[in-house]
Amino acid sequence: MKNITLYLVVGLLGLQVSVGVAAEAPISEQTEDCLACHAILHPGIVEDWKKSRHAQITVKQAMAVEGLARKVSSTSIPEKYQDIAIGCAECHTMRPDAHEGTVDHLGHRMHIVVSPDDCRTCHDEEAEQFEKNLMSHAYGNLANNSLYNALEHSILGRSLHKDGKLLKAPASDLTKEEACYYCHGTKLEVTGYEVRETELAGELSFPRIKGWPNQGVGRINLDGSRGSCSACHTRHAFSIEMARKPYTCKECHHGPDVPAFKVYEASKHGNIFSAKHKSWDFTAVPWTIGKDFTAPVCATCHISLVVDPEGEVVAKRTHRMNDRLPWRLFGLIYSHPHPINPDTTIIRNKDGIPLPTDFAGGFAEEYLIDAEEMTARKNTMQRVCRSCHGTAWVDGHWTRFDENIKLTNNETLAATGIMQEIWELGLADSTNPFDEFIEGRWTDSWLIYANTIRFSSAMGGGGDYTVFADGRYQFSKQLRELEDWLALHKQIRHLSKEKKEKDD
Amino acid sequence: MKNITLYLVVGLLGLQVSVGVAAEAPISEQTEDCLACHAILHPGIVEDWKKSRHAQITVKQAMAVEGLARKVSSTSIPEKYQDIAIGCAECHTMRPDAHEGTVDHLGHRMHIVVSPDDCRTCHDEEAEQFEKNLMSHAYGNLANNSLYNALEHSILGRSLHKDGKLLKAPASDLTKEEACYYCHGTKLEVTGYEVRETELAGELSFPRIKGWPNQGVGRINLDGSRGSCSACHTRHAFSIEMARKPYTCKECHHGPDVPAFKVYEASKHGNIFSAKHKSWDFTAVPWTIGKDFTAPVCATCHISLVVDPEGEVVAKRTHRMNDRLPWRLFGLIYSHPHPINPDTTIIRNKDGIPLPTDFAGGFAEEYLIDAEEMTARKNTMQRVCRSCHGTAWVDGHWTRFDENIKLTNNETLAATGIMQEIWELGLADSTNPFDEFIEGRWTDSWLIYANTIRFSSAMGGGGDYTVFADGRYQFSKQLRELEDWLALHKQIRHLSKEKKEKDD
Amino acid sequence: MKNITLYLVVGLLGLQVSVGVAAEAPISEQTEDCLACHAILHPGIVEDWKKSRHAQITVKQAMAVEGLARKVSSTSIPEKYQDIAIGCAECHTMRPDAHEGTVDHLGHRMHIVVSPDDCRTCHDEEAEQFEKNLMSHAYGNLANNSLYNALEHSILGRSLHKDGKLLKAPASDLTKEEACYYCHGTKLEVTGYEVRETELAGELSFPRIKGWPNQGVGRINLDGSRGSCSACHTRHAFSIEMARKPYTCKECHHGPDVPAFKVYEASKHGNIFSAKHKSWDFTAVPWTIGKDFTAPVCATCHISLVVDPEGEVVAKRTHRMNDRLPWRLFGLIYSHPHPINPDTTIIRNKDGIPLPTDFAGGFAEEYLIDAEEMTARKNTMQRVCRSCHGTAWVDGHWTRFDENIKLTNNETLAATGIMQEIWELGLADSTNPFDEFIEGRWTDSWLIYANTIRFSSAMGGGGDYTVFADGRYQFSKQLRELEDWLALHKQIRHLSKEKKEKDD
Repeated sequence: MKNITLYLVVGLLGLQVSVGVAAEAPISEQTEDCLACHAILHPGIVEDWKKSRHAQITVKQAMAVEGLARKVSSTSIPEKYQDIAIGCAECHTMRPDAHEGTVDHLGHRMHIVVSPDDCRTCHDEEAEQFEKNLMSHAYGNLANNSLYNALEHSILGRSLHKDGKLLKAPASDLTKEEACYYCHGTKLEVTGYEVRETELAGELSFPRIKGWPNQGVGRINLDGSRGSCSACHTRHAFSIEMARKPYTCKECHHGPDVPAFKVYEASKHGNIFSAKHKSWDFTAVPWTIGKDFTAPVCATCHISLVVDPEGEVVAKRTHRMNDRLPWRLFGLIYSHPHPINPDTTIIRNKDGIPLPTDFAGGFAEEYLIDAEEMTARKNTMQRVCRSCHGTAWVDGHWTRFDENIKLTNNETLAATGIMQEIWELGLADSTNPFDEFIEGRWTDSWLIYANTIRFSSAMGGGGDYTVFADGRYQFSKQLRELEDWLALHKQIRHLSKEKKEKDD
Repeated sequence: MKNITLYLVVGLLGLQVSVGVAAEAPISEQTEDCLACHAILHPGIVEDWKKSRHAQITVKQAMAVEGLARKVSSTSIPEKYQDIAIGCAECHTMRPDAHEGTVDHLGHRMHIVVSPDDCRTCHDEEAEQFEKNLMSHAYGNLANNSLYNALEHSILGRSLHKDGKLLKAPASDLTKEEACYYCHGTKLEVTGYEVRETELAGELSFPRIKGWPNQGVGRINLDGSRGSCSACHTRHAFSIEMARKPYTCKECHHGPDVPAFKVYEASKHGNIFSAKHKSWDFTAVPWTIGKDFTAPVCATCHISLVVDPEGEVVAKRTHRMNDRLPWRLFGLIYSHPHPINPDTTIIRNKDGIPLPTDFAGGFAEEYLIDAEEMTARKNTMQRVCRSCHGTAWVDGHWTRFDENIKLTNNETLAATGIMQEIWELGLADSTNPFDEFIEGRWTDSWLIYANTIRFSSAMGGGGDYTVFADGRYQFSKQLRELEDWLALHKQIRHLSKEKKEKDD
Repeated sequence: MKNITLYLVVGLLGLQVSVGVAAEAPISEQTEDCLACHAILHPGIVEDWKKSRHAQITVKQAMAVEGLARKVSSTSIPEKYQDIAIGCAECHTMRPDAHEGTVDHLGHRMHIVVSPDDCRTCHDEEAEQFEKNLMSHAYGNLANNSLYNALEHSILGRSLHKDGKLLKAPASDLTKEEACYYCHGTKLEVTGYEVRETELAGELSFPRIKGWPNQGVGRINLDGSRGSCSACHTRHAFSIEMARKPYTCKECHHGPDVPAFKVYEASKHGNIFSAKHKSWDFTAVPWTIGKDFTAPVCATCHISLVVDPEGEVVAKRTHRMNDRLPWRLFGLIYSHPHPINPDTTIIRNKDGIPLPTDFAGGFAEEYLIDAEEMTARKNTMQRVCRSCHGTAWVDGHWTRFDENIKLTNNETLAATGIMQEIWELGLADSTNPFDEFIEGRWTDSWLIYANTIRFSSAMGGGGDYTVFADGRYQFSKQLRELEDWLALHKQIRHLSKEKKEKDD
């Protein structure tokens, strides 16, 4: 039988492969089995893993690290993992019953999609925090909000032109998966099983998984858990260096709707990063200001455990990324204090709509953090700022930023005012407030321009992105386009009406 | 005589210069002559060359390399090059009679523009492949296609405003050279000769070359050959490292019409590259997955000879860049199977227009690769994918991508439908389908937005560029602008007509 | 008393801190005092300083450097600085009476904002040159030009929507500071003093400074001087490496109005930089072509002292950045020869408007450099070009570039022609020529598109940015939008008028 022959060859090769593995920690027999084939099949990811901390040290060694440098937050990790490297089998055969789609794979009960609830075995605290992170709810917060669905439909829907009119059919699942849900995360579902003839081991059974592949931060996993650690800790190196570098954040915060990376790159901080980061240490835990780096990246201000050169904690590590953020910049439709609950589908504004503000900019206060909590978060962030900046500098920056929130909300109010008049005059239909030409122009004003201006103010203290790069210049032009369109259509209506009156 | 004195001084300096050259391979007497002056005149390029492989080893040494690591593909290289470095004179005095514009240059018959037919002397296979590459035909494919000329004229033509109307005079050659033909390549022509007083060697004769400087991939050279190797292998280092880094591709594939680099940079692959490439080896031949790099760059998937850690070939080197590509993403007007012949001017769609699809999206099938060839190319590419990804992952990706092609073509069909109605109503004139305001909006829809969505799907599996960064968000808005403009102009025509009827 | 206790503790800590400082040059007692607290409070900037040349060598050592490598241009530097490192106190307590807002700070007369007139103590020549740089006048050139104020107001003004109309209230100072004046520089003013309870030293008095923080190139300082050296020489490393890397220029020259960085990054030069700069030396003075780098960055062509491998000066260092520039690309409204005087508020065009050209493109010649000076500057720049390129290449490049200036000015003329017709017909009001919808479209044409095309031609020899990335494609579309809007509004006016005539 061809398969058996192949299998034997693989066994021999496997021996060679395992000898070739440079990892310093002992590899479990199960992982040896995996590597026998997969080191040949997928050399890219195996090599990444071999260079990873997971392959380099045992769990016992990881747990022996004292104090802030310890990376394993769980206190009770099963005995069987203590003296081995964390390899393929450790993660992909963990909790087999918890995962839908687990298959028998050459004697191992293997699941394809590793979830935060698997990672939690060693990284409990981080998993705990991430559950409270808005990001872990990114799937549901989009999929289960009727208003956002309307926006999504207006963007992704399939177009059909008929007699000068555009009709929109619902978007296909495949489109959704590579569009909004690429970042928000897909909802994974096992839709069946199939037997595939494999290159090295003959016929094997695999689950068919709808929504796969995906590494979105809010992915709904086959064990029901939320999120994907590999969104930032890219498989299979799971490198802290890579998660800390701003390129990781860029994957989803690029623009123009959330231009965090672009704004950062053009800021003074980004300039220092670009010029100097090759001499920085992105792997040190804790992360020492001045010693390991001399300007913040995204992770420094938002996530990482940072200390001063004396080892004093400046900011604690958090995987609930808004711990240091009073304002949610991303305008829906206005900037507002951060939601209390990461599940934003429960929010209702005063008009009963699932939005954190009403159309006039009023906050849905009972769902949002209060002034005291805002101050606490601002203080946490400012401690980081003050590691390089004097009080006058920091206060000056935040005074402008607070004003910026108010003013961009004011500009959005003006845009919404014109839009309201357009709706009231019946020149557009607000049933879906996003699916007509002029509604798109209004959407730009808050989704692109107001957001950009706020990100630029927050992260760069202003500059190019505030003014010319999708900033105030574009916002002011957009307001005038709304005004121009309204004036034109009023004029035409006037002409039509007068004519009609005359005719009657 | 001042010139003679100078020349003597140069001779002496030359001696010093040649001594200072750190290259390990012997330099020919002819190249020593070149360096005598040019090391002083153009230190930048001479230093680049000195660090290059061309300067470091002799042809004999290069040919002695066995197996996949060999970089010189020609089997019979003239004896005279065997024991020397490849320096200035070797390329710039090669085949003097083949090049128009060859001049006597202090005793050497020198030509300024080195062509692929010169490079072919040592790199035969690459030159052969490149001739079959669409890119080598980039000049003619644009310059000799009447429809593309109409688009070019609408963009580059010289504007004159008269009575509220814009008139367009033909673009100047100088404009064309630094616009479309910067990337596509210019057609070089010797228009005469001039004598220039030179700094170091007195009066010398030089050709006047129209279209110079240029390094476009489809440049028509003075020996009649097509292309410029230095488009990617930048002179005078001709470095494989540089050609492999994505910044080289970016020069022409930047955006927004072909946003390959931007999409890559924001993808997971691009993220890994940005975070980790400083530890990768960009010079190794063959290029080993996992060992030399852990995520693909442009060259990995499209060009390079890549092997697995056992040395097995995963993909063969190719300089016909669509060898691994079933679909041509770049929409003209729709995405379509790749053309069979790199000369696309021969294509005629069913309406007799030189386009690979008709205006309703139908393929000009006889000029395009068939389903079998598409499958073969897809399989070649997928072998690269599978070096890091499981079958389910790879299949999932390609299923979405194939759907994406269909759906973006469908959106373009809707846009074209509205445009057709506009033309039929006489609200725009289709004689040149690109030169009116509303035609420009239609052009955006396929040239900018559909292309971006497809690149993002292909290279990133979706994400930001699919949705907000010149993606579906912008495409859907553009469709509505077409619809809005049509509705408005119908309304105005209606008002005008009714009034006119009344008047009569 | 708590404060005294703290102070004593700080004293002890201070001792430890100063011991820990790795700088090789002796630190003054005054700076020791500063470090006692600030090394703990602001470790980020202190660590940057410790790695800087300011901390590494004494002034005497710096002055002992002979020839081109010398970085200290002043010839008489006060004795008291000779044998110490230049630390906190040296700059922040220098010339206390010259600065408004100097406070007594634990026994030191300290000022917060260090100015070019402080830096001038050691870097006289650079300060002198920078005074003649347009950039040092960036505040006044914007703030004191009534026409630019109108543009600024149209962008930054606060919007209010009333009855379908937009009203614009003046922008707040806080908005201005983080918008235009982030780059142009703010005008600093002491508005009072406040006593703050500090963490380590109890109650201390600080000035309240309007316009702070800011590091804009044209900042008006509290000693009346203009500019901020830290705009490019980022505090507190003041690193020549960082100032030379193009990321620094990017902070203000990013786009889309002045897309210098983006154009550079996508050019052949930018490609070489991206691929190779990790092996370049950005700290060498003088900067040797071929040895220290093999392709130019912004600083190479515009600022730095560059020499050939023989040590011959190719270009002298200048901090008046237009020394090598004949044309001012940045279109106001047309490209024009550089202004003679860095104070551009004195310019009047033939219509008495403070613009270097009139609306028809004519130059305000008496305020602009003449043909001879233009040629001299061009020659200075071309010497840099010729370090890597032959004469034919350089001439070909500049011929296209000169044509580009003419042609983009011609396109702007066409756009302005349509705009003039719109104003003449009363379809827009030219009182503020920037604050209506259609005026915004006209503004785009020169402020975004013509500028981009020119930058692309100058720095990249053309390519993507010339055509598709805010280039000719967008420019030509914008022209047609102006034409389309005018035609539409003429048609509507015609309908209204005819009806009205009929009614009468």
